[in-house]
Amino acid sequence: MNDTAKLPDDLLINAADEIRIRQDLVLVALGKREADRVVRVGRLLDVHTGMWMEDCEVAIRGRRIAYVGPAGTFAGTAREAIDRMHLSAVPGFGEIHKHIESSHLTPEHEAALVMPRGNTWTCEASHEFSNVNGPKNLEFWLTARLAGSPMKIFPLPGSAVPPTAYEWGGGHFGYAEQAGFLAQSAMVAGLDEVMDWPAVWNPQNPSYERLWGMIRATFEQRGVVEGHGAGLRDLPEINAFAAAGLSSDHEAWTPQEAWDKLRRGIFIEIRPHSMPDIIGGLLERGLRDWSQVAFATDDRSASDTLKMGATDHNVRLAIESGLTPEIAYQCVSINPARHMRLTPFVGSIAPGRFADMVLLDDAGTVSIAEVWADGQQVSRDKNFTGHLPAIDWPDWATKTVNIERQMTADDFAIPAEAGRDTMQAALLRPFHWDDNFITTELPVADGAVQRDTARNITKFAVVDRFSGEGKVAKMFWLGCGPKTPDTAVGCTVAHDKHNIWVVGSSDAGMAEVVNRIRDNQGGWALVTGGKVVADVRYEVGGLMTNRTAEALDVEMQALYIAAEKIEWLYEPTFSPRWFPGFPERLQFATLTCAPWRWVLVAPTEAVPQGFVNVQTGQSHKVVW
Amino acid sequence: MNDTAKLPDDLLINAADEIRIRQDLVLVALGKREADRVVRVGRLLDVHTGMWMEDCEVAIRGRRIAYVGPAGTFAGTAREAIDRMHLSAVPGFGEIHKHIESSHLTPEHEAALVMPRGNTWTCEASHEFSNVNGPKNLEFWLTARLAGSPMKIFPLPGSAVPPTAYEWGGGHFGYAEQAGFLAQSAMVAGLDEVMDWPAVWNPQNPSYERLWGMIRATFEQRGVVEGHGAGLRDLPEINAFAAAGLSSDHEAWTPQEAWDKLRRGIFIEIRPHSMPDIIGGLLERGLRDWSQVAFATDDRSASDTLKMGATDHNVRLAIESGLTPEIAYQCVSINPARHMRLTPFVGSIAPGRFADMVLLDDAGTVSIAEVWADGQQVSRDKNFTGHLPAIDWPDWATKTVNIERQMTADDFAIPAEAGRDTMQAALLRPFHWDDNFITTELPVADGAVQRDTARNITKFAVVDRFSGEGKVAKMFWLGCGPKTPDTAVGCTVAHDKHNIWVVGSSDAGMAEVVNRIRDNQGGWALVTGGKVVADVRYEVGGLMTNRTAEALDVEMQALYIAAEKIEWLYEPTFSPRWFPGFPERLQFATLTCAPWRWVLVAPTEAVPQGFVNVQTGQSHKVVW
Repeated sequence: MNDTAKLPDDLLINAADEIRIRQDLVLVALGKREADRVVRVGRLLDVHTGMWMEDCEVAIRGRRIAYVGPAGTFAGTAREAIDRMHLSAVPGFGEIHKHIESSHLTPEHEAALVMPRGNTWTCEASHEFSNVNGPKNLEFWLTARLAGSPMKIFPLPGSAVPPTAYEWGGGHFGYAEQAGFLAQSAMVAGLDEVMDWPAVWNPQNPSYERLWGMIRATFEQRGVVEGHGAGLRDLPEINAFAAAGLSSDHEAWTPQEAWDKLRRGIFIEIRPHSMPDIIGGLLERGLRDWSQVAFATDDRSASDTLKMGATDHNVRLAIESGLTPEIAYQCVSINPARHMRLTPFVGSIAPGRFADMVLLDDAGTVSIAEVWADGQQVSRDKNFTGHLPAIDWPDWATKTVNIERQMTADDFAIPAEAGRDTMQAALLRPFHWDDNFITTELPVADGAVQRDTARNITKFAVVDRFSGEGKVAKMFWLGCGPKTPDTAVGCTVAHDKHNIWVVGSSDAGMAEVVNRIRDNQGGWALVTGGKVVADVRYEVGGLMTNRTAEALDVEMQALYIAAEKIEWLYEPTFSPRWFPGFPERLQFATLTCAPWRWVLVAPTEAVPQGFVNVQTGQSHKVVW
Repeated sequence: MNDTAKLPDDLLINAADEIRIRQDLVLVALGKREADRVVRVGRLLDVHTGMWMEDCEVAIRGRRIAYVGPAGTFAGTAREAIDRMHLSAVPGFGEIHKHIESSHLTPEHEAALVMPRGNTWTCEASHEFSNVNGPKNLEFWLTARLAGSPMKIFPLPGSAVPPTAYEWGGGHFGYAEQAGFLAQSAMVAGLDEVMDWPAVWNPQNPSYERLWGMIRATFEQRGVVEGHGAGLRDLPEINAFAAAGLSSDHEAWTPQEAWDKLRRGIFIEIRPHSMPDIIGGLLERGLRDWSQVAFATDDRSASDTLKMGATDHNVRLAIESGLTPEIAYQCVSINPARHMRLTPFVGSIAPGRFADMVLLDDAGTVSIAEVWADGQQVSRDKNFTGHLPAIDWPDWATKTVNIERQMTADDFAIPAEAGRDTMQAALLRPFHWDDNFITTELPVADGAVQRDTARNITKFAVVDRFSGEGKVAKMFWLGCGPKTPDTAVGCTVAHDKHNIWVVGSSDAGMAEVVNRIRDNQGGWALVTGGKVVADVRYEVGGLMTNRTAEALDVEMQALYIAAEKIEWLYEPTFSPRWFPGFPERLQFATLTCAPWRWVLVAPTEAVPQGFVNVQTGQSHKVVW
């Protein structure tokens, strides 16, 4: 039989194309139509049984697998025969929960970075870009694929848009938006991590209706509702989380927490920083059935990926933590695909799926020789050899830092009441998850409340980048930012609303940081002595850059080097992942999801000073 | 917090109710709202890990589970405390692929029969009733639940409606119908077994567009496409089946076939008749990961269920076949629920799920003491104690045998050509799966071709029961039906189109069988010596009866006793499940799916004599 009709391009999954592609694959499998190529491998991991198949051939047609069997059994012919007898094939790695924005690369450059490291498909936890430009969320995530990038991105619209009812700008997702996304594309697998826990359980929370509306829309269209159970460790809360219909968690830190969640039917997505502990603990408890477990990168910068790896790092670490290689590969293939209801498309080397394979020299050490995706080789060693489309990202992606004025030092002053020598001030630390904020007494000078560097107290601000007005919320923070005088640093990556955070030992420095970031339309700026000494451009959404990982890394390394000349405040806090030195993790210190309580957000009508307890809705003055 | 607003009745799952139910459950789990009852059990099987939890309590609210934890840890209060410390709890058993029609009981009576045997939810493979009244399919399957039956039925509309393009009447499902069903109810999990294999692979097949339209609609709404791979045993066909997107198979007969399918990503649903072989063979091959395996009853009559059990029988047999009890229970709980994308609702004893539990005296022998469903006890020992609604099934369900005339012996005569003493005749056997039919020479008498009982040759007919005309397709069959003179038997259960099949040693007897069946609006009739000696009423759709299993069994036993007085022809054929004696399995001898080739169907415009090869579309005269 001849195929005279042109087949669909098979980039974005949609049901109409899907049946035409499969009608064709069936005939290829039966040997009635020619395959494009047959790849012979030394062995192949069948993740459905968790067992290897020796000396196999994989027949490929278009971007899909038509046939898998022992070498020599394929009934048809192929235009090309490829010999990889010296290599072991495992399925292309899937990321079940990743914010590509945290790589700070646009999706086509993300592909070039992570695909040589095995990652061929990603469930994009899309709430970062969604919070910058919600209406364009889906278009943004599908653009690179439509331009031919071999990486499959399955966007899950963000539940946290806005993250809380106390934040504003960029996007607003509720029932209608989520229903629309799910109806619009079969690439949409569900609802990204539901992380505003007070808005889930508490009917009085102002985000309650919005969030449950998104959950409703997701159930309605048979999507997956992803969870985020940070800090939920006691049994009533874990049970409540499961009862809410939140199907997964990637926030477990301890083995006991992971175990308790797993046993309530919550699919566990283990992140590297807690992986040795959790895997060790689960093995200790006798777990043999790992079908409800996957690995998740969540957030990792391009610079870190260049150093440590992408999904391959997670698999390697799992094996080092005691898991068998076979189960470790299942945790990045069939397990996440099944959880996300994507098994017809990805997650195994089996007919009908995208022809995505990681070819290994050595399975036990995850030594990757080549990666194939969409039926083509896309890497050799660590080098991407696949299609990297040149995308001219439009203004809706590149003009997202909207501040229609110059910031000045005055914007960052915290005025004192007339006649006061000192004032009481509220203090936060990064990752301060206590029910209460800290209070202290601070000196007044020139009509404004002052920092106290000797006591590790500096000033932190969040600048609105959506309204055009550049509204500033500011307060005193403890144990973070520059100790060096006349110095400030800031960034547009300010999870999850992604306004601009800035911390500094001088108000003028803080203003200069924000002005430079605005000029660059996103990224980092480090100012000292009245000069910008380093900046990094994230010109796409203020979160990503349309450049290679290597080009971005050059800028990042320059920032790190400049930062080494600065003295940084430090003080331990609730998160074990808050380290001394350059405060890169301040990007995550503006989170407002569980387990946060008191936070600083950009000024909104509801909270003009931006200082609010997101668990209770209570707000407070920053000085009094 | 008080719940002043009335909660939804929570019978049929729908997203709007679902969020209200879960909003309430969350507060119960947190101890902020009262539970209805707390059940304490000696131990509980957590199917997510495959491991037991000792001394547990399960808090229930409405029909759902709010909390699971060690005894004494529930933070809230409950109206009632139930002690079942002497029992072990496992999740309510799920049937992943069952034709309830084969029980021959309406759904409310099916519930009363199977629930005491552990089965609390069923994916109804709905193509039997669909072929009788397609438009009312969904309404039919949801009626009992809406009336309060504690059994959850998830209908999968039948792909085989009609089974082939050569059959007619009752219903016609294509893209639009399937899209409508999926949109109409969240209870619809996907598309029932795709079984017309020639219509899947062959673009020339007249059912090609209809079938792929249903697959398309199912992909579109994130449903599951179920397969039926009978007779597909070579690797090209197995690969083609998987490539088509058919996600499962329940038709594997041998371990090698099951293994080859499992390894191509096909979810394996093992039926009891091949279970010892398949489980033994998979264990022998070293399978430890059973997450892609479930058990399926497929078809089992109420009488057989009364004798052997329901899902409990399958689990027991699996354990006897060498599987650990823990994995065997997973194969009827989490595994089928996950495959069917129903984990938020069923498949484990975990928060948010329906409160369905099987309480066992002994897990190893599947000794069931009590079954709970929807948070209530529904059985004690083998007795159903749950709600059995009295349903007055409407005419669209009970008036489905439409023959507007009396049948006579002449309807079953096969006329000979004038002047011939003998004629060539086509012969089939039940389950004759050869590419070719058999031919033989038969005598002519009184202008008609005659049976030859001495050579095991009798007459078989399929009578149209949809058009009103009572059109008859008839031919000679080998090795089935009565040898006793002037005797005939027939039934409206004639998979899968469910016209009337009748086989007899006299034409008059065949006519009398059909007339009685028409008068009864369905079921069995056995006629000998001009008298109906036994009949069984299936007055609902001609497939089921609105009576208890026990009442139906009385009639069936009377039929079996009457049948013992008849001498039956027999001859082996392709199916190992074709036995000597009363030919009850002729109900399945009219199938037209793979691996069938030549079949007899009721007359249609395309095939006026009804004798057709469903693989090729070729038809043939029955005598010449």
